[in-house]
Amino acid sequence: MTRRSKRRSRMRPSAASTRDVNYSALKNPLIRQPSFSQDRLEAIHQTALRVIEELGIRVLNEEARSYFKQAGATVHEATQMVHIDPAIVAQVLESAPSEFVIHGAVEEKNVILGGDNIAFVSVGGPPYISDLDRGKRNGTLEDTRNIIKLSQHFDVIHLQSPNVEPQDIALNIRHLHTIESQLSLSQKPFFIFSRGSPQVQDGFAMTRIARGLSESEFEQKAWCYTVINTNSPRQLDIPMCQGIIDFARAGQVSVITPFTLAGAMAPITMPGALVLQHAEALAGITLAQTVRPGAPVVYGSFTSNVDMKSGSPAFGTPEFVQAAFGAGQLARHINLPWRGSAATASNAPDEQSVYETMMSAWGSILGGVNMMIHAAGWLEGGLTASMEKFILDIESLQTFAEIFQPLKSDDAELAFDAIESVDPGGHFFGCEHTMSRYQTAFYQPLVSDWSNFDAWTESGSLTATQRANGIWKKILKEFEPPPMDPGVAEELQAFIAKRTEEGGAPPES
Amino acid sequence: MTRRSKRRSRMRPSAASTRDVNYSALKNPLIRQPSFSQDRLEAIHQTALRVIEELGIRVLNEEARSYFKQAGATVHEATQMVHIDPAIVAQVLESAPSEFVIHGAVEEKNVILGGDNIAFVSVGGPPYISDLDRGKRNGTLEDTRNIIKLSQHFDVIHLQSPNVEPQDIALNIRHLHTIESQLSLSQKPFFIFSRGSPQVQDGFAMTRIARGLSESEFEQKAWCYTVINTNSPRQLDIPMCQGIIDFARAGQVSVITPFTLAGAMAPITMPGALVLQHAEALAGITLAQTVRPGAPVVYGSFTSNVDMKSGSPAFGTPEFVQAAFGAGQLARHINLPWRGSAATASNAPDEQSVYETMMSAWGSILGGVNMMIHAAGWLEGGLTASMEKFILDIESLQTFAEIFQPLKSDDAELAFDAIESVDPGGHFFGCEHTMSRYQTAFYQPLVSDWSNFDAWTESGSLTATQRANGIWKKILKEFEPPPMDPGVAEELQAFIAKRTEEGGAPPES
Repeated sequence: MTRRSKRRSRMRPSAASTRDVNYSALKNPLIRQPSFSQDRLEAIHQTALRVIEELGIRVLNEEARSYFKQAGATVHEATQMVHIDPAIVAQVLESAPSEFVIHGAVEEKNVILGGDNIAFVSVGGPPYISDLDRGKRNGTLEDTRNIIKLSQHFDVIHLQSPNVEPQDIALNIRHLHTIESQLSLSQKPFFIFSRGSPQVQDGFAMTRIARGLSESEFEQKAWCYTVINTNSPRQLDIPMCQGIIDFARAGQVSVITPFTLAGAMAPITMPGALVLQHAEALAGITLAQTVRPGAPVVYGSFTSNVDMKSGSPAFGTPEFVQAAFGAGQLARHINLPWRGSAATASNAPDEQSVYETMMSAWGSILGGVNMMIHAAGWLEGGLTASMEKFILDIESLQTFAEIFQPLKSDDAELAFDAIESVDPGGHFFGCEHTMSRYQTAFYQPLVSDWSNFDAWTESGSLTATQRANGIWKKILKEFEPPPMDPGVAEELQAFIAKRTEEGGAPPES
Repeated sequence: MTRRSKRRSRMRPSAASTRDVNYSALKNPLIRQPSFSQDRLEAIHQTALRVIEELGIRVLNEEARSYFKQAGATVHEATQMVHIDPAIVAQVLESAPSEFVIHGAVEEKNVILGGDNIAFVSVGGPPYISDLDRGKRNGTLEDTRNIIKLSQHFDVIHLQSPNVEPQDIALNIRHLHTIESQLSLSQKPFFIFSRGSPQVQDGFAMTRIARGLSESEFEQKAWCYTVINTNSPRQLDIPMCQGIIDFARAGQVSVITPFTLAGAMAPITMPGALVLQHAEALAGITLAQTVRPGAPVVYGSFTSNVDMKSGSPAFGTPEFVQAAFGAGQLARHINLPWRGSAATASNAPDEQSVYETMMSAWGSILGGVNMMIHAAGWLEGGLTASMEKFILDIESLQTFAEIFQPLKSDDAELAFDAIESVDPGGHFFGCEHTMSRYQTAFYQPLVSDWSNFDAWTESGSLTATQRANGIWKKILKEFEPPPMDPGVAEELQAFIAKRTEEGGAPPES
């Protein structure tokens, strides 16, 4: 190669020279922020232990009570109250794994939960969907599938979620379709609702079909997860207990998340709300570990505050951030993976939705979150999934993923020679140091428009949310489902047909 | 007091029971995030020293070159290049104060710069103003005064800023009116542009009139500040040098801020851009400390990246955040207060403007920023000040201020008794623990709307930016200037009249 052609090839790098950051497996190198000194953290832990020992937890599920009895807890059948000795809690915390893998259809989609690893999960659970074209409306299966597609498309989303409730599908067969959609449109680890054993068992059976597993192969690894919300204060209901039991028994993941809104279902002080959260989570973890020692569980928190004038929940508040710092400390105190959230109470995918989501995301990330749920698409306190908000959130998540990358700072990066090569008052656009790096140096944004005001005006003065509208449409239009063996797809459809014929499985409460 | 009336008074606390957080004096308790190991940080510092010793800085101002000569630097008059020995830099860093007070009209408005203290400064320097009613247009003195009023109104803004350029005022007398506006509408420490000695001396004279100071009283304390932008790479121009000289001589504050855009005026690597930033800042600091050892200076940074396709500057990028972490480390390495920024390239006060501003604000805050400039109202890469964006930013700044407050966690906050008093599945709305705290427990938002979708729709489906429009108007309508002695106000007006008659002072370049 001549000197000249060498230079040319440096200045016009091949198409392959694109930025190479692996969003699929992220570690969070940021220093964790505490809300409490070590002794006050221990005081919160001890007070939570007093709550479950002295005050007790009401457990509505009989089988769960028998497990608690088996573990050595004091159970009053008449009142359904369960009192758990601190020694029992200490013992179950020994068996719960601090880090584990939840498996996807292919190894690249496996996700490690715990340690310094961080996984982002799309919006979970809203009954409504909204987009700029059609506004807010009831979710349908098509909407569910659309969000699954977006979640599969972006590497920075690591786990599928229940996302929008497909209200056009009958309750007794809805789970069959949401699970099939996750399995056929995505290779990522996925979600099953805990709405009674029959639904859960259907989900497990479909997982075995899709992943090609025997029952014992299935139970040896984690493939799917559920979220368990306690009925704060101090109550575990029938399907939630059943979910913990079924998932633990099968070696699948329970994310045990008290929804402790300070001033409503929890004390008005954030440390008090965290005491209640911790007590309820420890009770759920005790159940899981009693059913199967070593069952994968995630310490969940969703502590925020309410508007004391209206009782409305609020998210992304300073109280939320401080609670997130504290919740992360509590999770590390008991050496479990921690689930947090990115959330907002805003009714529109507007500026409020962004600053509240960003505040809660930063709070969770600096708290050391391992599993950040609702990280893309959440709106209106969780009642609505927004297509545009999903795209806006992806931009922030990708920014976080980039911030997590180590900043190379060897001597070549310090650029003394480059600085020498440019005269005072000059510029670095054309210098060798720039030319050899310019295609891969910086993150390329998804939504952000950095053009000047005139160019932006000429292209229609679109806001970020308006631009996001075009982005999700393009992705859905071009989406191609990951490969699935036609025999497996057929088997899944046959399973759905059979279970539908049998009447499906209505949700239990 | 009877038991009954006691309870009543508890349940209906007096109007005085409002949240009591002092936004006027904030300390940042968050752990600082690093971008570099200690040895790479030292390598950046050493490389910057090599840049100013071996490569040199071009200094266009003759008086500045003579000061550098006096300090012991090697000066080539023909090329205007100044080469500074590392020993000189080490010596001037000894004399620069790591923490100092900049004084307001009253003691409550004094601001400490340095240490763990954090000060927020409103938008500085844009030629344009925008609001939802009238769109983007040239700034006028009325706009300048409006932003001064908003900055005076909110305690979370600590320092006035140049804000919008009043383009309806002739250049030779513009400084008289912007300075008079800051002095008459606000009690906070304020800003003077470095556009040549005559303007600066006018500003100093007006400060002495407004604050009632003799020349020597004025020079004993810091009352005002200027921002010095180097002409990166490696150049200090005439008015910038003059600003450093004039401010240092008078004991006033220079914020020495290289504008090092990686890939344009600085190396494309963030560590390389920081090397250049550090070299230029150290040169400016050397000048200030040579003029007057102990002169208050702030280590400024504004390192970000550009869009390599268009050359447009970008803000709130992952690169910006990593550079902010590193810049904070460099400021602590030389033990000086650090100036950072909250910034965005967005053309509208939309979702992009919020996520970019939030990313840059979190980057600066976790980097340990002492003086966060452009913290409210910045838009379009600094070309426009937005009235609505100002309000949105205040919401975030107040949220940060609340996050900075220590979270009380004594035994009463852990709320064991409250948890005991509420049955499983019940709620905490009415319990004593809640009732005694509910009026002051939580931050009350400025813009956020937490009402449900129906209520929000009925009230017009306003976005946060639309609501912000009503908020700034109400504040301006109700604004009352702080008291000023009529004699002082008269003297200021007389000074302006006299200087105007004399022809004012056109900006120098």
